Amino acid sequence: MKPAIVMQTDFTKGPATCTMDGVICSLDPAIRTYDACHTIPPFDTYAASASLDFVVDFWPAGTIFVSVVDPGVGTARRACVAKLKNGSYVVTPDNGALSHVKRRIGVEEVRQIDETINRLPTTREVSIFHGRDLFAYCAGKLAAGLITYEEVGPAYPVEEIVMHETVEPAIKDQKLVGMIETSERGFGLVDTNIPYRMLEEIGVRHGDQAFLKVLHKGNVVFEGQVTYAPSFGFVPEGEPLIMISETKHVELAKNLRDISTEFDIKAGPDWTMEIVKA
Amino acid sequence: MKPAIVMQTDFTKGPATCTMDGVICSLDPAIRTYDACHTIPPFDTYAASASLDFVVDFWPAGTIFVSVVDPGVGTARRACVAKLKNGSYVVTPDNGALSHVKRRIGVEEVRQIDETINRLPTTREVSIFHGRDLFAYCAGKLAAGLITYEEVGPAYPVEEIVMHETVEPAIKDQKLVGMIETSERGFGLVDTNIPYRMLEEIGVRHGDQAFLKVLHKGNVVFEGQVTYAPSFGFVPEGEPLIMISETKHVELAKNLRDISTEFDIKAGPDWTMEIVKA
Amino acid sequence: MKPAIVMQTDFTKGPATCTMDGVICSLDPAIRTYDACHTIPPFDTYAASASLDFVVDFWPAGTIFVSVVDPGVGTARRACVAKLKNGSYVVTPDNGALSHVKRRIGVEEVRQIDETINRLPTTREVSIFHGRDLFAYCAGKLAAGLITYEEVGPAYPVEEIVMHETVEPAIKDQKLVGMIETSERGFGLVDTNIPYRMLEEIGVRHGDQAFLKVLHKGNVVFEGQVTYAPSFGFVPEGEPLIMISETKHVELAKNLRDISTEFDIKAGPDWTMEIVKA
Repeated sequence: MKPAIVMQTDFTKGPATCTMDGVICSLDPAIRTYDACHTIPPFDTYAASASLDFVVDFWPAGTIFVSVVDPGVGTARRACVAKLKNGSYVVTPDNGALSHVKRRIGVEEVRQIDETINRLPTTREVSIFHGRDLFAYCAGKLAAGLITYEEVGPAYPVEEIVMHETVEPAIKDQKLVGMIETSERGFGLVDTNIPYRMLEEIGVRHGDQAFLKVLHKGNVVFEGQVTYAPSFGFVPEGEPLIMISETKHVELAKNLRDISTEFDIKAGPDWTMEIVKA
Repeated sequence: MKPAIVMQTDFTKGPATCTMDGVICSLDPAIRTYDACHTIPPFDTYAASASLDFVVDFWPAGTIFVSVVDPGVGTARRACVAKLKNGSYVVTPDNGALSHVKRRIGVEEVRQIDETINRLPTTREVSIFHGRDLFAYCAGKLAAGLITYEEVGPAYPVEEIVMHETVEPAIKDQKLVGMIETSERGFGLVDTNIPYRMLEEIGVRHGDQAFLKVLHKGNVVFEGQVTYAPSFGFVPEGEPLIMISETKHVELAKNLRDISTEFDIKAGPDWTMEIVKA
Repeated sequence: MKPAIVMQTDFTKGPATCTMDGVICSLDPAIRTYDACHTIPPFDTYAASASLDFVVDFWPAGTIFVSVVDPGVGTARRACVAKLKNGSYVVTPDNGALSHVKRRIGVEEVRQIDETINRLPTTREVSIFHGRDLFAYCAGKLAAGLITYEEVGPAYPVEEIVMHETVEPAIKDQKLVGMIETSERGFGLVDTNIPYRMLEEIGVRHGDQAFLKVLHKGNVVFEGQVTYAPSFGFVPEGEPLIMISETKHVELAKNLRDISTEFDIKAGPDWTMEIVKA
């Protein structure tokens, strides 16, 4: 069976994403396309990187991910296909979207898409829709077996991949520090890059209390005492808690409330979290 | 051909639902997954039940529905797979989401998911995402034929299934009374549990007028005279009407207006409707 | 391989669209269904026509498009299947949704759906959901090969297809005039029906400046000097530009801003654009 193509964009689902499906279906109708997320905030390449990282592990090796958050479309930024060390591929502008998966999984090889052969021939005049004309088309050719990975285009050094900064999780004087990776509106799940096992290193176990701060550029946005619990329902409605996130990191939330919206918490290296045992 | 999996959640479509697709694709890439609705209001198990009921009849027998509206995730509520009397399956937390289909179609058998064998092995530490780690995984194994229905886990009495209350439709002194099942924002379709044939029992036929009240906990939220018409376009723009709904019940709407938003009408047993012939 | 079905509606994605997928899956589970756009503004048949036109070219010949924006559902408007001159089909109420594709691609033949045979038999009493009961069902039968195109129902003259008005692009006294076809919220892409080559006819080339007006019923909504550039990133952040759109027409935007929302620009024959060389 041919590999699936999984797509994320900042376009919102609609006619634009539909043409991406169509370009792939035209190359080979047997290829299955899936939507990851089409509601990435416009131009937010950090969110694209975090969103991609969230889903990659749950798809079979060999899956082809297409990520199109592309504020520089039509300018000199590289369009690439990265081969991850887990055997999957990411087709994306090289603008930071590979940061998380490169750091966590590793990139085995990266190739710049050769536009002279891997670009939809009927839309040569159009410079503003590489999602359709370049990324979906190239991913479709790769998934269909019409090109090999080597035929994507010339390889370039993995070290040249554009990376977002990160704040490495660390413990200083019994204070656990890390950054906020995603802050989801709806349930209000505020996930970090702090592996949950680091809570044990500062002596916090299930049922314990901790003092927690969320900071934006060093300014306190939220602070309070929280319970470390297995899930929402272990604290009263409206109470804050930390728990093991979907990604096995420390996650802040409130039971049946949206703490992300309440305190307008966002994500990225400007947003940090500090935790000490209570 | 293997059965399709149809999913509804309160997650909004995005990375979280994508991992559910991925877990299933990893078990067997030939299984087709479909989205029912990922915009169920957070934690609203009544809406989950009504939404599921809306779609079940239109899918082939044997289809596997996954419903994840799960305010008690990680706590003691049961995770189950119900086998409906029409031959389809529902994989869901047992928290009220089966109310409508149990009442209308019937549940032949219900089994609690055995987490020791039907849970994604790589995320054992995570308690907050059963949609991915338990429900999608178990549904995928069932759809792929990796387990039989009996291998889901131990059966328990169908009578123990958690049910939402309902207000049975009835006629008292020529007044037709029932409850609001769904109140859709956009077109403003306010559907009830009153079978449309009951209108005839109080003498209301196409073209007739009726007096109608919408009540919340007994307080009038909307009242007015409405036409019973085959469809929107049979009354002037902006006029209220009742008609036969998509589910063959009495439905309130306005032609080319959204009466649901205008009067902030919601759904569930607290929301009732009363109709008398004009 | 059987043709794919590509669907657009004004329903928003949810239980209603899910039943359309289910009706098709029940007819033949091997048929692949795709979502084009389910966020067309309610009742906006002009937007439906433009949205359909945006996607058709990128799907294989023979694809079956289902378009359900149907303010007159259940009234006398025709339900039809049009065979386009490119070999694809459109299943839709005949209410203007075919305007763009008829004008640009051409309709080879149009047939009114025979409801006595091509309507879901189990929902005869329901008049308000032709998306499920008529359009999806008929499209599914056609895709599955259960009926031929001729068996859709009786042909009627292509000239009788309901058409939206248009403002043909033209040059008058070195002023380029056309209409706005789509005005997308998010990136703020304001696309027109002016072929980009007409810019050359008034002497505007890449890098040149132009004076541009957006008018609603003749009243100026936006005016300003804009650069003609290959893509967003060729002008400073926040600056307006015109470029070659995804559809190869003249498109107005601002780099990293949403000009559509900023000036509340909408689309259709009431919305025109005027361009002169600066």
